[in-house]
Amino acid sequence: MAKNIAARSKDYPQWYLDVIKAAELADYSPVRGCMVIRPYGYALWEAIQRDLDRRFKATGHVNAYFPLLIPVSFLEREAEHVEGFAMECAVVTHSSLKKGEDGHLTAQSELAEPFVVRPTSETIIGSMYSQWIQSYRDLPLLVNQWANVMRWEMRTRLFLRTAEFLWQEGHTAHETAEEAETETRRMLDVYADFARDFLAMPVVKGRKSESEKFPGAVTTYAIEALMQDGKALQAGTSHFLGQNFAKAFDIKFLDRDNQLRHCWTTSWGVSTRLIGGLIMTHSDDEGLVLPPRIASVLGAVVPIYRSEEEKDKVLAYCKRLASAICGEKRVNEAFEREKGREIISVFTDESANQKLVIDLREGRAVEKHFHWEQRGVPFRFEVGPRDVDGEGFVLKVRHDNSKHFCKLAEANAEWFAERCREVQEAMYQKALKYQEEHTVEVSSYEELKEALKKGGFVRCWFKEDAEAEAKIKEETKAVVRCIPFEQSGETGKCIFTGRETKEKVLFAMAY
Amino acid sequence: MAKNIAARSKDYPQWYLDVIKAAELADYSPVRGCMVIRPYGYALWEAIQRDLDRRFKATGHVNAYFPLLIPVSFLEREAEHVEGFAMECAVVTHSSLKKGEDGHLTAQSELAEPFVVRPTSETIIGSMYSQWIQSYRDLPLLVNQWANVMRWEMRTRLFLRTAEFLWQEGHTAHETAEEAETETRRMLDVYADFARDFLAMPVVKGRKSESEKFPGAVTTYAIEALMQDGKALQAGTSHFLGQNFAKAFDIKFLDRDNQLRHCWTTSWGVSTRLIGGLIMTHSDDEGLVLPPRIASVLGAVVPIYRSEEEKDKVLAYCKRLASAICGEKRVNEAFEREKGREIISVFTDESANQKLVIDLREGRAVEKHFHWEQRGVPFRFEVGPRDVDGEGFVLKVRHDNSKHFCKLAEANAEWFAERCREVQEAMYQKALKYQEEHTVEVSSYEELKEALKKGGFVRCWFKEDAEAEAKIKEETKAVVRCIPFEQSGETGKCIFTGRETKEKVLFAMAY
Repeated sequence: MAKNIAARSKDYPQWYLDVIKAAELADYSPVRGCMVIRPYGYALWEAIQRDLDRRFKATGHVNAYFPLLIPVSFLEREAEHVEGFAMECAVVTHSSLKKGEDGHLTAQSELAEPFVVRPTSETIIGSMYSQWIQSYRDLPLLVNQWANVMRWEMRTRLFLRTAEFLWQEGHTAHETAEEAETETRRMLDVYADFARDFLAMPVVKGRKSESEKFPGAVTTYAIEALMQDGKALQAGTSHFLGQNFAKAFDIKFLDRDNQLRHCWTTSWGVSTRLIGGLIMTHSDDEGLVLPPRIASVLGAVVPIYRSEEEKDKVLAYCKRLASAICGEKRVNEAFEREKGREIISVFTDESANQKLVIDLREGRAVEKHFHWEQRGVPFRFEVGPRDVDGEGFVLKVRHDNSKHFCKLAEANAEWFAERCREVQEAMYQKALKYQEEHTVEVSSYEELKEALKKGGFVRCWFKEDAEAEAKIKEETKAVVRCIPFEQSGETGKCIFTGRETKEKVLFAMAY
Repeated sequence: MAKNIAARSKDYPQWYLDVIKAAELADYSPVRGCMVIRPYGYALWEAIQRDLDRRFKATGHVNAYFPLLIPVSFLEREAEHVEGFAMECAVVTHSSLKKGEDGHLTAQSELAEPFVVRPTSETIIGSMYSQWIQSYRDLPLLVNQWANVMRWEMRTRLFLRTAEFLWQEGHTAHETAEEAETETRRMLDVYADFARDFLAMPVVKGRKSESEKFPGAVTTYAIEALMQDGKALQAGTSHFLGQNFAKAFDIKFLDRDNQLRHCWTTSWGVSTRLIGGLIMTHSDDEGLVLPPRIASVLGAVVPIYRSEEEKDKVLAYCKRLASAICGEKRVNEAFEREKGREIISVFTDESANQKLVIDLREGRAVEKHFHWEQRGVPFRFEVGPRDVDGEGFVLKVRHDNSKHFCKLAEANAEWFAERCREVQEAMYQKALKYQEEHTVEVSSYEELKEALKKGGFVRCWFKEDAEAEAKIKEETKAVVRCIPFEQSGETGKCIFTGRETKEKVLFAMAY
């Protein structure tokens, strides 16, 4: 077992931080609560962006960019919205610095009206939409923004909850409530499909209770994932905003009957938090485990030798192996580009930023194995002198630790793509099985309390009621994660109030 | 001539703003000096990012993300750096808002140490590098960041100079001065190649004079482009920082001889300013003109008809034409995805976000022509009933207004790609010719003053001297744009001081 990583069974929060540190995904920064996303971690975000952005465009959305700073008066306009965000805003009050006699800088030139660094952009985008939208011909307006946002919360945890984080926020405007509602649900589906296909992360789709919805929304939908410690993670949300922001920002259009009406708007987002969810869905006591589709390093070729003579022979063979999978041209380009480097990166797909690495470092093979294992690289290709003689290699699979004896003759791009597909699917099935095995059904409040102690999703009849939820939260620290879309159509008695209800909900402890 | 666009000859600054407005590239926002980049303008930035990022990765760089906020004390550490940026910083002084009795929000929870919104990230990145770099094995460290930055300047102009802008900033650390210098020059070459190949924008590569270099740099290199009004635009910079930031932030490594030494660092960046340069290189009195490689809409298919019967026939043919170029599958997908829309977008290349549009709007063809013309779409496909009968179409080329009678049988993906290449090259040659025709050589200060009045690059012998530069700037408002790498090897007499010099420099009025 890795010495630099705590066991999950001993200390899950420490394990989480250790995995991030060992894989060099992120660091705390000198700025309170803000993280630095290191290159190997940022490659995960780039992969997420690439795949999600493709899905947004395929559903007719376009990207735009709105100002980082929001006038404080904008926040005041939507009553629930301001309550939700005012307490945790970074406030810009001055527009320059001046050097004092002691050599230190102090704030100068106070602004007439302060700004906040955007915690979310409904208000500033709403103010622009009110200018851009005149008629039904301007609708639907389907815009997304990739951006940084800030919410200065007290307790932070890398990726899961940081003062600044990266996200995308979709903001759309529509002619009718039905259209906006359809959009809200469509984007939740996009998130769920993405989580399943790209992150190999099973999620439950549902509606948030009134107490848990977005400040200013009529309805919030979410995808909820289950982490290995039995806690739920909200992985993405999609909000039907009704006409709340349209009224606050005067977003009106001339409809087909020449009547001036307020638009119906939506917003939806996922953030760097997904990387936290990814880690806690797949990783193990040895460190990070990545599904192939998101991995920037798909495989590490590790040469094993004991003499200079063996070394030459093994290295030449490693190049042949990499050439079989990536093509000889890419291998030659890589050795040219990275001359003098100890680890050579050969692209398998430039546009997806995916590559194989050839690990030329001096040192023991076991240390190199350990290095790539902790970084969650899906495949390791081990090549020793006997493999060269037999024209074979050993393929080690990270997620199930399996070992396969392969022939060089079978290794090519399609063969490797097929191995990647197999592992992607197997990782999803494993995570789904975990989720299913950790979802229980209870029929009383006592049973709910017992079940919550064990962790996992707990399903039960519940009649939505803010007071009941608050009470349950106080007593158990758990909340309604969502009211799943999938319902039986039957009715039952609420486990807390005994009232009749059509809905079973999911309770869980949560991040 | 377009009524909503001022003539360049009458009012160039107004023309510039009119072009941006007519093409819906960007808007001023309610936040002083900050712009909103509208979807059609943001697509240009996305294209720039896609192509540049590929070039960065191909030269061995990786992306990362560092905090938006920088502690004020960090700025104090590098003396020249703080002088360069302190006057225009957005200062964050509080971490929450509170609602007063009058219902208004005011800043609460003053921070012990204020932060600035990053104007550039040498300091915060330097502080992280000092933790990450231990030994020569950690070098070179080749990192880039895509981010927003703020510099609150008084006079703003869309894309060219805005309080917040988007950019990339590369930050690298090296073992030796030579290596860092090589990196600095390599990245300037990447920028110049990108400007030529992707933006069809010719640039001059050179060194900045001492007075014009980056605050904290040893040497600044830049690419300079010439706009249609004869003013120069600095389009990208690459800085050799020596050990200045390594000393200020204690970035040290154990070298190959086990000695602890300071690193040598570089930084380099381009920003959304490039879009301003793109506009002022190619656009004309009719509006925006885009080179094909950066255009998100490569072509607009405009059906022309006078009766319902003609309409059916022409629209069916337009679909055939789009299918010939994009493939039938993509056309069908587009009509399915964008059902009910008046303009249908068919991808020619999903990964490059490039498409053809089919303009199904009711209304006069001339208005549709005008619409796509103002948006700089490189090609327009005009299809009327007679074209259908003759199995042909008219291809209008935006940049030279030429008109070509084509046959449906010849139209396919490769044919269209070839048209795009032709136009890309022709636009570059046109811009290069403009630059060459507006570069003059002078041999006295009097001649320099005369030449500057006409605009363009003015080349002359000049012995670098801060005092002389200041004097010339005062008298002419022009500065040394760069000391070009290309020099004859001869010597001459400085036009201002008469001293002998090996260098000819480029003077120009500048943005």
